[in-house]
Amino acid sequence: MTSDLVNQSNRQLKLKRRPENGKDAVPDDFEVVDVAVPEPQKGQLLVQAEYLSIDAALRLGLQAGDFLFRVESGDEIPCIGVGRVVASESPKYKVGDYITGELGVQEFAIVEADEATPCNIDLAPAPTWLGGFGVSGLTAYFGLLEPCKPQPGETVVVTGAAGAVGSVVGQIARIKGARAIGICGSEEKCRWLTEELGYDQALNYKDPNFANNLAEATNGKIDIIFDNVGGPVFNETLKNLNMHARIVICGATSQYANDKMEGPSNYLNIGTWRATLFGFVVWDYAERYHEGIDQMAQWVDEGKLKLPNDIQEGEVGDFPRLLGDMFQGGNKGKMIMRLPAAR
Amino acid sequence: MTSDLVNQSNRQLKLKRRPENGKDAVPDDFEVVDVAVPEPQKGQLLVQAEYLSIDAALRLGLQAGDFLFRVESGDEIPCIGVGRVVASESPKYKVGDYITGELGVQEFAIVEADEATPCNIDLAPAPTWLGGFGVSGLTAYFGLLEPCKPQPGETVVVTGAAGAVGSVVGQIARIKGARAIGICGSEEKCRWLTEELGYDQALNYKDPNFANNLAEATNGKIDIIFDNVGGPVFNETLKNLNMHARIVICGATSQYANDKMEGPSNYLNIGTWRATLFGFVVWDYAERYHEGIDQMAQWVDEGKLKLPNDIQEGEVGDFPRLLGDMFQGGNKGKMIMRLPAAR
Repeated sequence: MTSDLVNQSNRQLKLKRRPENGKDAVPDDFEVVDVAVPEPQKGQLLVQAEYLSIDAALRLGLQAGDFLFRVESGDEIPCIGVGRVVASESPKYKVGDYITGELGVQEFAIVEADEATPCNIDLAPAPTWLGGFGVSGLTAYFGLLEPCKPQPGETVVVTGAAGAVGSVVGQIARIKGARAIGICGSEEKCRWLTEELGYDQALNYKDPNFANNLAEATNGKIDIIFDNVGGPVFNETLKNLNMHARIVICGATSQYANDKMEGPSNYLNIGTWRATLFGFVVWDYAERYHEGIDQMAQWVDEGKLKLPNDIQEGEVGDFPRLLGDMFQGGNKGKMIMRLPAAR
Repeated sequence: MTSDLVNQSNRQLKLKRRPENGKDAVPDDFEVVDVAVPEPQKGQLLVQAEYLSIDAALRLGLQAGDFLFRVESGDEIPCIGVGRVVASESPKYKVGDYITGELGVQEFAIVEADEATPCNIDLAPAPTWLGGFGVSGLTAYFGLLEPCKPQPGETVVVTGAAGAVGSVVGQIARIKGARAIGICGSEEKCRWLTEELGYDQALNYKDPNFANNLAEATNGKIDIIFDNVGGPVFNETLKNLNMHARIVICGATSQYANDKMEGPSNYLNIGTWRATLFGFVVWDYAERYHEGIDQMAQWVDEGKLKLPNDIQEGEVGDFPRLLGDMFQGGNKGKMIMRLPAAR
């Protein structure tokens, strides 16, 4: 290990206490600890984090739910990041290479070389590997195209449309010739979706006429629902299904902090309209990520696709505050924290 | 029309008033009226009802919901039945033929010859054409085999297992080599499912240990859920999904009388386990009904399949009471009212 790292400490974020049931995590629930920079063993890399992904799914890990994973008091905070290899005990990577992987919220992480993904920052800047070419963009790509198979002229409704995943889904729907209607939580985001990202229409679910607006915009005939939010907004979309509609359940951000999740009471419409609801986890497509990245890179080159990032400067200790901002719907596109180490 | 019908009257059941939201229909909500026996016009049949199907789905039609159909105050009560052609203005049927079709709850019905289905009472007795070879049996057959595709060794959980559909689903699952676990509402029905119908295991959802019993019986790994009941029982099954589980939504009898349906709060498990939930309506398979009937008839001949009917004697005015009995879970298998005209 290089001598300048031996004496350096590694700031690391841990969960001090799980939030009360039904309450969101607040900065006081976390603590920053200083630990020694670890030494990589055979097959491992020491990675200095430059960008950390701020993911809505973490909300659920911190709460009572057991969807995908659960963070306990005293645990490090799981987090995907992009970092630079600063020491390598693997022939697969050399110092200076960039990788993405599970880094945790900390400055230095040990990563198994086999579990790292090389990150070509000549093809796209580092944050893109956390956003459009990362889990959120690939979720949009495979989650829409694989189970739902949008057809020209179909109506695609995206909830959480201004979020990391939703901001990409509607654009891909349009590339495939479908009509994209986004649902989000502010007039400003609505404008962003239609003016910047090319959504055909955007609806604010906080508008008191939201239910009518949705029925009108969709003519009561939604072919595809790409749901990121769950709760009452998702439930309302289920009142407007077209025959043989496809629904993909990507997340339920509105419910992650709830003590008890709310199920979609209109789910019987799935029967009436012979619809299909698909569970989806992007990890199942890991062997095809390159295919999604190549296709999206081409669309970006052709000017058909934007991969919007919302980059916030911060240190390890700022992570809880930024997470809270995202829970409040503060982000447009993929929210990413840029650490001081980023160059 | 034969002279003995000209002077006869036709007793007919109507809805006097829709039940209050959240309350089940009671006999006082209905009324029996006497009308003239109608005359068939060109292309029509006059049919004398012999057996009437008592269907759980009617509960929803009578309530606030708008799933499939809705019955208003003053409407005749929709009902599938088997009857004998007593006058024909169509070359397709002659007097004495048996048909199934939408008869309504009445003694004599006008049926369009094109909408009637011939009913071969030499192949199977008339009630079987309302049960196993009717909508409920065909729902079991196509609803299980088409979307869910049970494989040998898989675990199939059937809710409402002692009902018209459920009593057939588990048997077909076993014929396909799967393990059938039925959920029902009494110890007596549990015994009936395992001892008479060959279910591998049956669980009483009223047992205070139901959740544990379900987790144990399924080892927490259900491959297929065939749901007829919705509500808390369906929700509990969603806690025990195997990877790539298939779920078919056939009905939600527990919810039909509710003012507000309860959605399945555990639906995010569908995401975690990459499951798929299928809406299903048997009408979509109308052109393949003969295939289901032929196959089930063969299984009956081979002693592999029973098509259990629960036949109650009654007149038109007894229909509301029998409907109430079914809502209370009084039936085992397909509930059918046998009218005095049956010979």
